[in-house]
Amino acid sequence: MTNMKIAPLSGFPEWLPEGRLVEQEILDTLRSTFELHGFSGIETRAVEPLEQLLRKGETSKEVYVLSRLHGGQGQDAELGLHFDLTVPLARYVLENAGKLDFPFKRYQIQKVWRGERPQDGRFREFIQADVDVVGSENLAFHHEIELPLVMVDALSKLPIPRVVVRASNRKVAQGFYEAIGLNDVVETLRIVDKLDKVGPKVVAQMLAESVDASPEQARLALALAEICGADASVADRVRALGYSSQLLEEGLEELVGLVEGANELLPGSVVADLKIARGLDYYTGSVFESTMMGHEDLGSVCSGGRYDSLVSDGKRTYPGVGLSIGVSRMISRVLGRGLVQPSRRVPTCVLVAVNEESERRHAEKTAHALRLRGIPADVSPSSAKFGKQIKFADKRGIPFVWFATEEGEQVKDIRSGEQVAADPDFWMPPVEDLTVCLLPVGELA
Amino acid sequence: MTNMKIAPLSGFPEWLPEGRLVEQEILDTLRSTFELHGFSGIETRAVEPLEQLLRKGETSKEVYVLSRLHGGQGQDAELGLHFDLTVPLARYVLENAGKLDFPFKRYQIQKVWRGERPQDGRFREFIQADVDVVGSENLAFHHEIELPLVMVDALSKLPIPRVVVRASNRKVAQGFYEAIGLNDVVETLRIVDKLDKVGPKVVAQMLAESVDASPEQARLALALAEICGADASVADRVRALGYSSQLLEEGLEELVGLVEGANELLPGSVVADLKIARGLDYYTGSVFESTMMGHEDLGSVCSGGRYDSLVSDGKRTYPGVGLSIGVSRMISRVLGRGLVQPSRRVPTCVLVAVNEESERRHAEKTAHALRLRGIPADVSPSSAKFGKQIKFADKRGIPFVWFATEEGEQVKDIRSGEQVAADPDFWMPPVEDLTVCLLPVGELA
Repeated sequence: MTNMKIAPLSGFPEWLPEGRLVEQEILDTLRSTFELHGFSGIETRAVEPLEQLLRKGETSKEVYVLSRLHGGQGQDAELGLHFDLTVPLARYVLENAGKLDFPFKRYQIQKVWRGERPQDGRFREFIQADVDVVGSENLAFHHEIELPLVMVDALSKLPIPRVVVRASNRKVAQGFYEAIGLNDVVETLRIVDKLDKVGPKVVAQMLAESVDASPEQARLALALAEICGADASVADRVRALGYSSQLLEEGLEELVGLVEGANELLPGSVVADLKIARGLDYYTGSVFESTMMGHEDLGSVCSGGRYDSLVSDGKRTYPGVGLSIGVSRMISRVLGRGLVQPSRRVPTCVLVAVNEESERRHAEKTAHALRLRGIPADVSPSSAKFGKQIKFADKRGIPFVWFATEEGEQVKDIRSGEQVAADPDFWMPPVEDLTVCLLPVGELA
Repeated sequence: MTNMKIAPLSGFPEWLPEGRLVEQEILDTLRSTFELHGFSGIETRAVEPLEQLLRKGETSKEVYVLSRLHGGQGQDAELGLHFDLTVPLARYVLENAGKLDFPFKRYQIQKVWRGERPQDGRFREFIQADVDVVGSENLAFHHEIELPLVMVDALSKLPIPRVVVRASNRKVAQGFYEAIGLNDVVETLRIVDKLDKVGPKVVAQMLAESVDASPEQARLALALAEICGADASVADRVRALGYSSQLLEEGLEELVGLVEGANELLPGSVVADLKIARGLDYYTGSVFESTMMGHEDLGSVCSGGRYDSLVSDGKRTYPGVGLSIGVSRMISRVLGRGLVQPSRRVPTCVLVAVNEESERRHAEKTAHALRLRGIPADVSPSSAKFGKQIKFADKRGIPFVWFATEEGEQVKDIRSGEQVAADPDFWMPPVEDLTVCLLPVGELA
């Protein structure tokens, strides 16, 4: 290994060790919350056969295709890096269907890759955290209340601005559009999905051009999109627009059941918002989006919905409901704006000082005793003057320095300067100093 | 998403949820041990510019090269998936040198990819766990004792067969080969490295052919490789071969310092074994390899060494010492031989039963109260007969089922059948049932 020239790669975020401490703490909290709710973790390989990655119909996704440097052509199936965790889940469920218990509750926290143009909050390599419940043949509606609440529970524990989940229901949209005579539901949804970006005038114009909407149909579609709220009044306002159908009623009942059920368990958790459309055509029931308060410009940080067929093997269909958190998007904002910082820059709680090199072995034994009891400890790499060793700790935010003195072992809290006699087999730091914790800053403080 | 045909991909290991519980527990133990020793975690992007991946001189490595499906030619720098965590570390250190504190102690647990022919314990996608200490300009020898001990500490906590680290020193090999007149040290090392595979006769023959070794020189090189032990007698036996040089003496002093220092702190941790050669030419001091006892056929599961120049920016050089654990190799053996199993198949500790659908909300509140106190809880997905709900828990190994009865809330240990009154705000399971733990089986029990 010799000289290297370094050019940063846009779209591939990396953090300094301090930033990684924040990311790791966030990933740990997500995982432990998912496990508290009984979800099993899985990890799938980073690659899928290209034909399966392109199956979703989303050929607009920029897939990274792999080839082996010395490999001949056509030796292997063509492989690509997965661009989400849903395609891998579908394949995993089918591959292991005989060995999984259904309903299968799984979480998955992994990197995904998209070769798209990088911009703020949009990366080429990023982490997603997904939870899904997948049934075999059928899946009860109550999971559509359960899943967003898992995410609200997880997100509420993170050092990030408050997130509210906004929900709609595909049956409401489809039932209403069909009732007012707009029969190209998928295209109508795709246009309404742009409402926040382009505004109502442009949406009306696009509806007229793309799905032949009359001014009255466009007005009604926009009126539906304006409705939001957290209780049964939402359904009343939809009905007050004067249209009805069996599908619409079914959707309204589910939507009200969702927001009322969710808010009874976790008040303020889920709001019905009928402009939520979600572009993907495989959703069939509840759909979800969520933004961080004050950071709506970042777009949705947690989205998903109900799908009646994640995958099918020809004999059996697997319906599900799931949500996905855009972890890197959230973290890059939180780190970029300096909204949180770790309590120290390294895991170390105690630096054991070294008087002179001949005493290093003794210092190592002290550190070993501390670690045996779960206290992260490091030994000073040099036997420089104590002042220098304290500076070494201070620069990294290590709170305690341990000395072997003529009066015996002592430990100094270098923040207060307090120094006390201590035995490495018994001394414990205050619990808040034991491991790194995250401190909210600015708008989060 | 519609029908899918599934064909397994050789070389890309994936586990069922039970296997992932084992993997996750092993990864957690590695990470927490590295942090106890004061190492900072970093995560680098999965890709590096191709020219940097090929810089190490190891063009025999089968790199996976990326291209964008819709991307034109030559739009971006050519990227490949990293095949180890050392090349990314070198790039990360150089890119962030001004912001890192040296000596920089980092651990990194990530997937790497190699497009090689898959075989037992050799994958195309696998997890490595690396620890390195990187200095700026210089790095004290004591880190060569510290680093293998970090790995021994970590490995000893895992549910795997015992691992002993075997060490040699590049200075001993180089000093000795030069002293006996074999001046192509790199090639000699490469040949001696094959000793375990091809035996002493073939090695002698190869030495004669490739580095012009006389029979006496070959005999001496093989005699050196036979020496092993855990104390200063190792150096005596090398000296007894009758050759000496300043470099050889320096190496012997380091090697004895290493094994004696390591074994004083952790008895039985490190053995000197002079046949350890390590193919890579960038090692300059201690080198390490380790096998699991009884599973030597798997090859080394933890290797590394000292290098005087990880990387250089032309002005500054960064020496280091590091070891890497082949996590997937270890786990595939442990899972494949059934040497360990998780105490249950899901994270759930308590399944809250549902009497009838109208009481689901009550069951959700009970589960919520349990989770608030850190008890993983799930609500029965159906309100089938209690017998069926207990079966649901039993199949997954969930130890407790919670009932709302006319006499009040009760919790049943379905293993013993014992059922007691319980309050979700106060009841706690025995600590060994709270989360999943790993149970050793067979040779590990």
